[in-house]
Amino acid sequence: MIDLDQFQKLTKSTPTKIVMLVLDGLGGLPHPDTGLTELETAVTPNFDELAAKSICGLSHPIDFGITPGSGPAHLALFGYDPMKYTIGRGVLESLGIDFDLRKTDVAARGNFCTVDHDGVVTDRRAQRIPTEQSSKLCENLSKIKLSGVDIKVVPVSEHRFIVVFRGQSLDDRIADTDPQHEGMYPLKARPLVLDAEATASIVNDFIDKAKKSLSGSHPANMLLLRGFSKLSAMPSFSELYKLQAAAIACYPMYLGLSKVVGMKTYRCECTEDEFSILSDIYTEHDFFYIHIKKTDSHGEDGSYATKVAEIEKIDSLLPQILKLDPDVIVVTGDHSTPAAIKGHSWHPLPLLLHSKWCRADETQSFGETACASGVLGNIKAVNIMPLAMANALKLNKFGA
Amino acid sequence: MIDLDQFQKLTKSTPTKIVMLVLDGLGGLPHPDTGLTELETAVTPNFDELAAKSICGLSHPIDFGITPGSGPAHLALFGYDPMKYTIGRGVLESLGIDFDLRKTDVAARGNFCTVDHDGVVTDRRAQRIPTEQSSKLCENLSKIKLSGVDIKVVPVSEHRFIVVFRGQSLDDRIADTDPQHEGMYPLKARPLVLDAEATASIVNDFIDKAKKSLSGSHPANMLLLRGFSKLSAMPSFSELYKLQAAAIACYPMYLGLSKVVGMKTYRCECTEDEFSILSDIYTEHDFFYIHIKKTDSHGEDGSYATKVAEIEKIDSLLPQILKLDPDVIVVTGDHSTPAAIKGHSWHPLPLLLHSKWCRADETQSFGETACASGVLGNIKAVNIMPLAMANALKLNKFGA
Repeated sequence: MIDLDQFQKLTKSTPTKIVMLVLDGLGGLPHPDTGLTELETAVTPNFDELAAKSICGLSHPIDFGITPGSGPAHLALFGYDPMKYTIGRGVLESLGIDFDLRKTDVAARGNFCTVDHDGVVTDRRAQRIPTEQSSKLCENLSKIKLSGVDIKVVPVSEHRFIVVFRGQSLDDRIADTDPQHEGMYPLKARPLVLDAEATASIVNDFIDKAKKSLSGSHPANMLLLRGFSKLSAMPSFSELYKLQAAAIACYPMYLGLSKVVGMKTYRCECTEDEFSILSDIYTEHDFFYIHIKKTDSHGEDGSYATKVAEIEKIDSLLPQILKLDPDVIVVTGDHSTPAAIKGHSWHPLPLLLHSKWCRADETQSFGETACASGVLGNIKAVNIMPLAMANALKLNKFGA
Repeated sequence: MIDLDQFQKLTKSTPTKIVMLVLDGLGGLPHPDTGLTELETAVTPNFDELAAKSICGLSHPIDFGITPGSGPAHLALFGYDPMKYTIGRGVLESLGIDFDLRKTDVAARGNFCTVDHDGVVTDRRAQRIPTEQSSKLCENLSKIKLSGVDIKVVPVSEHRFIVVFRGQSLDDRIADTDPQHEGMYPLKARPLVLDAEATASIVNDFIDKAKKSLSGSHPANMLLLRGFSKLSAMPSFSELYKLQAAAIACYPMYLGLSKVVGMKTYRCECTEDEFSILSDIYTEHDFFYIHIKKTDSHGEDGSYATKVAEIEKIDSLLPQILKLDPDVIVVTGDHSTPAAIKGHSWHPLPLLLHSKWCRADETQSFGETACASGVLGNIKAVNIMPLAMANALKLNKFGA
């Protein structure tokens, strides 16, 4: 896509509305018995009918062969070059739980973990202790005093929490303390650049005091930190696209990511609520990002059948979007999560874009193979927003 | 593809193995009688069966419309942006004959040629004199003394040789002395930048003395130099991909190119040997580049029928790769050499990539038209290595 500074000059506010429905981990791999992916197996009359009226293709989240994390995959969907703009895990998690992060804060994602007598990690997730238990531990850890720096420790869910270091001249270029494998010692917070030495020393002080505070609380008797990060500067949706954007999701991280680009966030308890809230707020915004988490979760679990069922459920809810008659509808995923791989993968995602002006192609169903023959071909995800904006007639001419 | 510095952070060593079979000059043009290219005419049951289980596409060596030399075409296949990394012909030929090139050396590819009484080139290849004859001439030329610079003149094959200028502060930005056409005078070695003036003067001294040394040895009574170059700095295969790579080829230049990126090279006398050596060394490496030269040679000669026959021969040898059951198999070419053009061309190459995770498309045979409908579509060759690495499960996730 073209440079954002150039792109921003083309955008204009109009009454048209765009809905972007993102099925997390949508892309899959063929089942050995049928040769069909999860999406191709699912009975999706509504997606198929929409695909037949759309222009279709395959979306590469980052580039050929690259398996993305959720952060860069979403930045690309939102039209930001994920090689240029980065979002640390600590920032994402903080924003997702409505923590009021400041530009000078350094945030980290934390796990409570279990260590043995020698200090070796035996369970990186401390038996996934209940949130109410970790909330009490976070409360204790928040009482830790360090000179010149305020510490906030806030629970996320189960063994997950965030730590925010608030002070002056803090640097986020610090390596993870999570060794990523059991049977190893937690790592020291190591500065990645000289400028981060002072901050790393503060983090290590915190960890030492936290270890003492947790020593009696088996199984959560230690913590691991990763994704040290600060808010990065990028143009907001309102600046870049002149859109008043809404994000609808169940899971904190995706709401956090949406906040980074200036969307108003709507947190839901379940998938059905996401579709009903869309109707409720439809007059208040002109861009709607709806995030469906469970397609990814089932893929991560290696559960082909439940991923199929979740896709069918979303298909059955699609008419709730259609009846609002948005000017542009985009349906895709952020990355593939094939049940066969039980994790994110590099495979491109089926993509459909429907509008009055889309010049629909001959794709008759919504699936990996069908969309591969779509007129959009193989495109990078970062190009989806420019296409959506064009189809919403929200872009001025480039050049005379 | 993404920046190599970023890419290098994603790569990991695993036991999986990748075989990349490169048929030089594979791409062709339709025969006027049948409308089929050389590859489409060839009976290739093994390639076709593999294509049916693969993801296919068309590989553009450099970019739309660009006809590459063998150097940039191979760098792209190996995953190095050929616009950023360059390999001069002199360096390539030197490495291909196992010459121990140093970082400060300037190397040039030489041709013995024939000039008439007036010094006009009448045969750019001196009747392709036998290697043993040119070896003697090279021995004489090596005796030439120049102040402050050592000269090495080493035969390659027939009329081809290399000259290496070894000294301090030598600059390789010097234009070719080969006028590329008969009926013209050899050119002076002309500096392309001011800094190369001293080196150009040394080269011209050498040429003057060489001309005297050769004056009695018709038909090789003069020499032409091209591709003045130094070794360029690029990350090796082991640094970039964490692969222990092997290169199997018959022709020096391709082995030279492989050495530049740190592959261990295995020189073979004939095509059949290339396939048997693959089996011999299969346990010792995790990446195998196999180069087939004759497809290109027949294309250069304008010989449609023998190019077809060579492709059929490679097809018959393919089962020797298949029985090793590599995790990833890539089959493509470095560039097209249509018999109709008798030279390299810009036409994209048929490409197949097979792995357990490739999400095979509906392509049922290996050919230009069939692969054009493959799901990979039109891709730049530089993306092949990232895809091969992804399919070998040798890449970590990008970002959180």
